[in-house]
Amino acid sequence: MSLVVQKYGGSSVADAESIKQVAQRIVATRRAGHEVVVVVSAMGDTTDELIELAEKVAPLPPGRELDMLLTAGERISMALVAMAIANLGHEARSFTGSQAGVITDSAHGRARIIDVTPGRIRGALDAGAIAIVAGFQGVSQSTKDITTLGRGGSDTTAVALAAALGAQVCEIYTDVDGVFTADPRIVPTARRIPRISYEEMLEMAASGAKVLHLRCVEYARRYGMPIHVRSSFSQAEGTWVTENQPGTTETEGGQDMEQAIISGVAHDRSEAKVTVVGVPDKVGEAARIFTAVSGAEINIDMIVQNVSAAATGRTDISFTLPKSDGQAALKALERIQPEVGFESLRYDDRIGKVSLVGAGMRSNPGVSAKFFAALADAGVNIEMISTSEIRISVVVDQDDVDTAVASVHRAFELDDPDGAAVVYAGTGR
Amino acid sequence: MSLVVQKYGGSSVADAESIKQVAQRIVATRRAGHEVVVVVSAMGDTTDELIELAEKVAPLPPGRELDMLLTAGERISMALVAMAIANLGHEARSFTGSQAGVITDSAHGRARIIDVTPGRIRGALDAGAIAIVAGFQGVSQSTKDITTLGRGGSDTTAVALAAALGAQVCEIYTDVDGVFTADPRIVPTARRIPRISYEEMLEMAASGAKVLHLRCVEYARRYGMPIHVRSSFSQAEGTWVTENQPGTTETEGGQDMEQAIISGVAHDRSEAKVTVVGVPDKVGEAARIFTAVSGAEINIDMIVQNVSAAATGRTDISFTLPKSDGQAALKALERIQPEVGFESLRYDDRIGKVSLVGAGMRSNPGVSAKFFAALADAGVNIEMISTSEIRISVVVDQDDVDTAVASVHRAFELDDPDGAAVVYAGTGR
Repeated sequence: MSLVVQKYGGSSVADAESIKQVAQRIVATRRAGHEVVVVVSAMGDTTDELIELAEKVAPLPPGRELDMLLTAGERISMALVAMAIANLGHEARSFTGSQAGVITDSAHGRARIIDVTPGRIRGALDAGAIAIVAGFQGVSQSTKDITTLGRGGSDTTAVALAAALGAQVCEIYTDVDGVFTADPRIVPTARRIPRISYEEMLEMAASGAKVLHLRCVEYARRYGMPIHVRSSFSQAEGTWVTENQPGTTETEGGQDMEQAIISGVAHDRSEAKVTVVGVPDKVGEAARIFTAVSGAEINIDMIVQNVSAAATGRTDISFTLPKSDGQAALKALERIQPEVGFESLRYDDRIGKVSLVGAGMRSNPGVSAKFFAALADAGVNIEMISTSEIRISVVVDQDDVDTAVASVHRAFELDDPDGAAVVYAGTGR
Repeated sequence: MSLVVQKYGGSSVADAESIKQVAQRIVATRRAGHEVVVVVSAMGDTTDELIELAEKVAPLPPGRELDMLLTAGERISMALVAMAIANLGHEARSFTGSQAGVITDSAHGRARIIDVTPGRIRGALDAGAIAIVAGFQGVSQSTKDITTLGRGGSDTTAVALAAALGAQVCEIYTDVDGVFTADPRIVPTARRIPRISYEEMLEMAASGAKVLHLRCVEYARRYGMPIHVRSSFSQAEGTWVTENQPGTTETEGGQDMEQAIISGVAHDRSEAKVTVVGVPDKVGEAARIFTAVSGAEINIDMIVQNVSAAATGRTDISFTLPKSDGQAALKALERIQPEVGFESLRYDDRIGKVSLVGAGMRSNPGVSAKFFAALADAGVNIEMISTSEIRISVVVDQDDVDTAVASVHRAFELDDPDGAAVVYAGTGR
């Protein structure tokens, strides 16, 4: 009997009616002969409502207590899902993250999973029951306190449990049909990607694709756990995220296909750009700057340093970071201004990032040129550029994001349902 | 350093503002030099709302899952109380029933506490923190599943923890000033009882006084834990529930007083009366009847059997039970009608019970006569009578309850602030 892990997000369990529908789908999977473990998020906006309540009581609630509070959300949804399944005549047992053996470090609010010991889940499955597990939460190995995993935590719970239990697949149910070549709200002709490698999915997620979180994909890649991202509102196939190996094509439902050069176009409007102007061009100045910023626990994304002007011996360093960290970063930098001796700081939160992702660009040097040409043709000015082996990202004016995404998507013919991008594989363009 | 356990009910933590006020009181107790353990109920109507949600999902939710669901309520309130305390500059750590070591049997929805192992609470106190504990819940010793204790469960949690930790007192905070000689909504001149024995309080609770639950008082009596019932909205002394020993008077704040004969008048409108008409007067018929009823897990309160009529050799047996169990009892009895051969069943849910409670009535035989005379003078017809050593209860028409309570309260001069009832102790009436 094969084991399937299914994860349902907050919108899939938003009210009693949705929960009953989710229960139907879970029971159908059980009746099809699978062992089923289900990971659930909190209902709809529960988590936000609890955070609001916490803020009313204490402006800066202790992390331990905030985690204790927020984990009530999944506790409610998991018990209700288990009840709805029982009402359909199947036994279901719900488990908190702690009961399910999700062991984490003790970083409240952003804990990392360090071990999964799913003995009680295995016991419930062996007894013929469906196991329902609270996503997003675990228990600290050292303090035994309840922890939460941070954004995307429920997806990570699902993949981690799937890996620990040796599941056949981890199904992530969401309100869209899978991962698309671009955001369909911007590019209506964007198409569902039937299959994508972990590596490409990581780049897509890091570049702003919201369907799957980075950590969950990282976890899946580490353990080689296939993820199937699909809609909880239809029976259609979604997107398979798997190793890029011939052997894995059978899990796609028989759709063996040539690997496309380009997976898709991602965009991100959540970042801001900081420019440190007039940094003396000496060894160690960049290190001081980024030590100061990372000391404020801020994650930096892109970094660009211009060639220094010969006349002044000074250079500009720009970097992007989450908008929410903007003020903290500026404060940290102002503190080191006397020491570093840079001239000024500039802050721009009206930027957007547009990224093209595809494993095939490794062996196709023409991709960058085509990407920049598409942006130029669309009249989009580029402010920053960064690349990885399988990704090109540019920072543009926020107002240009839609135009940039659409023109790049068109230039690479990603909206062609026959997958025109595949043609490039043979032409070497 | 003495240890105080405080319990706050749902109305004391109904919203963010109330929670902040409760935090002030807790911190004041800590600042006065006590170690403090706080037991909280779920906020306001949370438990009822969760039950409603469960009923929408499944008409008959499994007990295990219902308990998992309901315990989310205290999880929310305890985390918020801990945050509010932290906001006042004191460390507070919240603990679920399971984390606090509240070990129960596995009877979901009505679990009994079988052990309390408060190691983590002791640890938090030793570290200088205030411990906040979720009331109403525990963990099953055998299955490790989360359980709830049923009605009044948070009071029981508080007393159990107080006993296990060797607390000086268990303070039960509520929205009234203590235990009264009668319900002040019926008898506006009812006065607060400054001190009452466990035994009397048990009878008061069993007779419908809602301030404290039977189980909590039973637990306190077993462990000799003084309870102080008081209002969370004032600093006034409430009612001390203690052993009836001279040594305990010092905990009353020095109010040494002669023991009153009568504690108070309690009433209860939650019961119904079943009469089994025409039961053959043979050995074992009553046993069959009550075996059938208790087999349906129904708790019976009063039982009255008339002398059988010589002509027919048949008798009537009446008993009272919670209204909510009425239909189940009738069904159970109908099933055994052929076997027992009684004539018919009568059901009356328009009854009320009025009880007079007082340890002093043991040595004062005139109390019953005075009680019945008061009812007769008020024109109240008595349907059933039952007595214990320190209580007389009558069943009357529901519409007569208020009149009966007021007239008995007046007859025993319970509203006299000088405690006229005490006078009887010497007169032997």
